[in-house]
Amino acid sequence: MKSIKVFAPATVANVACGFDVIGLALDNPGDEIEMSLSDTPGIKILGINGADLPLEPSKNVCGVALQALMQKYEDKNVGFEMTITKNIQPGSGIGSSAASAAGAVVAANILLGEPFAKEKLVRFAMEGERLASGSAHADNVAPAILGGFTLVRSYTPVDIVALPTPPNLWVTVIHPQIEVKTSDAREILKQKVLMKDAIKQWGNVAALVAGLYRNDYALIGRSLEDVIVEPVRSILIPAFHDLKIKCKEAGALGGGISGSGPSVFMLSTSEETARIVANVMHEVYAPLGVDFKVHVSPINQSGVKVISQ
Amino acid sequence: MKSIKVFAPATVANVACGFDVIGLALDNPGDEIEMSLSDTPGIKILGINGADLPLEPSKNVCGVALQALMQKYEDKNVGFEMTITKNIQPGSGIGSSAASAAGAVVAANILLGEPFAKEKLVRFAMEGERLASGSAHADNVAPAILGGFTLVRSYTPVDIVALPTPPNLWVTVIHPQIEVKTSDAREILKQKVLMKDAIKQWGNVAALVAGLYRNDYALIGRSLEDVIVEPVRSILIPAFHDLKIKCKEAGALGGGISGSGPSVFMLSTSEETARIVANVMHEVYAPLGVDFKVHVSPINQSGVKVISQ
Repeated sequence: MKSIKVFAPATVANVACGFDVIGLALDNPGDEIEMSLSDTPGIKILGINGADLPLEPSKNVCGVALQALMQKYEDKNVGFEMTITKNIQPGSGIGSSAASAAGAVVAANILLGEPFAKEKLVRFAMEGERLASGSAHADNVAPAILGGFTLVRSYTPVDIVALPTPPNLWVTVIHPQIEVKTSDAREILKQKVLMKDAIKQWGNVAALVAGLYRNDYALIGRSLEDVIVEPVRSILIPAFHDLKIKCKEAGALGGGISGSGPSVFMLSTSEETARIVANVMHEVYAPLGVDFKVHVSPINQSGVKVISQ
Repeated sequence: MKSIKVFAPATVANVACGFDVIGLALDNPGDEIEMSLSDTPGIKILGINGADLPLEPSKNVCGVALQALMQKYEDKNVGFEMTITKNIQPGSGIGSSAASAAGAVVAANILLGEPFAKEKLVRFAMEGERLASGSAHADNVAPAILGGFTLVRSYTPVDIVALPTPPNLWVTVIHPQIEVKTSDAREILKQKVLMKDAIKQWGNVAALVAGLYRNDYALIGRSLEDVIVEPVRSILIPAFHDLKIKCKEAGALGGGISGSGPSVFMLSTSEETARIVANVMHEVYAPLGVDFKVHVSPINQSGVKVISQ
């Protein structure tokens, strides 16, 4: 029986100024998915390591994403069996559901002989996101599948733009072990924003994209400013402002809330600085009495990767 | 006496999705400014050809921009005399005041031996814009001085990013001879916008910048969509929607209102298409009984240019 094992990366959505449109992929952490083709039609989730998630395909993001793929695949007689290993904690804000959904559709696509382009796979994985959060957003699944930085220009129709990644860009992420539900984090956002704030935000998003193309780290740093969402959501994250100020003092270019939180990310221009920033995160959080994890990672350039085949 | 003659280009601000932040420069039309250094301190406007504008320096955008420059220049004993030839009609929405202000500061800077960097000149010229429209915006003066496409990332502090210009990009502009005051065009805008519209807008601005870096004309075309300002301001422009649809059918990538109107611009990927689009504009406007002018121009790559010295 043909089988494959893939690594599916964590991702940082929004990237400060790019609410709902920009995302980036990490080299670690990531989920692993082992998948086999089966002669029995249907999707079977044999087990999930590391998290308490439903095995029933229609209630599991991998299952739902695969179902979306199978709906567009001609041969209805193939089936899939898979085991999921969750290394990205659900609810962390670094694309846990997106990684699993992305891993599942990329693995299945390879097993089937790659009938679908990556852009199509993004659409299938978005159905997993619809299950996980109620909306089929693409700002985590796009970087999880394509790697690097991605832009979701539009949802109607889905229009994904792969952006370049400047060399030596590192990410430090702190995940405070508190629960912030994506749906709650969405609900506290206002439906209307001030025009003058919106203008600032799109000035910064445009500059972030220019900075990525120019390898202009200073410009990237200046553009990592979120005047729309961060002022509202940061109240849900302990010591957010202190953390941000101290990480930037320690050399980080800038950062913000990862996705809908509670994780916070910082970008740096070297592994050394990214590790210093990690230490600063430890120093800020250690006295708070909140459990936390810190990840240090380069930007993942490839998206979902085959581990063995 | 040292003297110089410069050409100062018309500009298209906003460029559809980039309200208040993106601008581009045209090769034509443009104003001309002849300027001489003088031993008598102060600014003297000897004459203005082609428009009825104040000669008094404190009431003229060139005078005010030059005053801003002189405030930062050490030697207070120099003066300037100038004659302005207006080929860009005031109130047209293609940066008439910006061109004159930009031309004046660039000419003066050259006469003084270039003590100021271009970014500084943008700030001086912005003072002309403050006089002309009540706000010191930079989205016309930046492309007039730097050429090509520019981005105003921020006003506090002023942070201008020069963007690349894909080859063979042409602009067609129709200027309906009706009056739309910048202040009126500003007043009809809402102070708040829907979050979902703002997200669409910054997705498009980000994609426009990516398209310019990638020379991706299709992406540029898809991103030339303005869901915030155009729906409100387009009511001030006769036959706007008909014009836009027919220009795109004729091969234009897309376009929108130039600045605060009433001019409308369209981008095309060749001179041939740009001229076909010009014909379409003629066809749409001829029956309306509104006077109009049409300009066809490549993107200006250099900003203000020296004609003679």
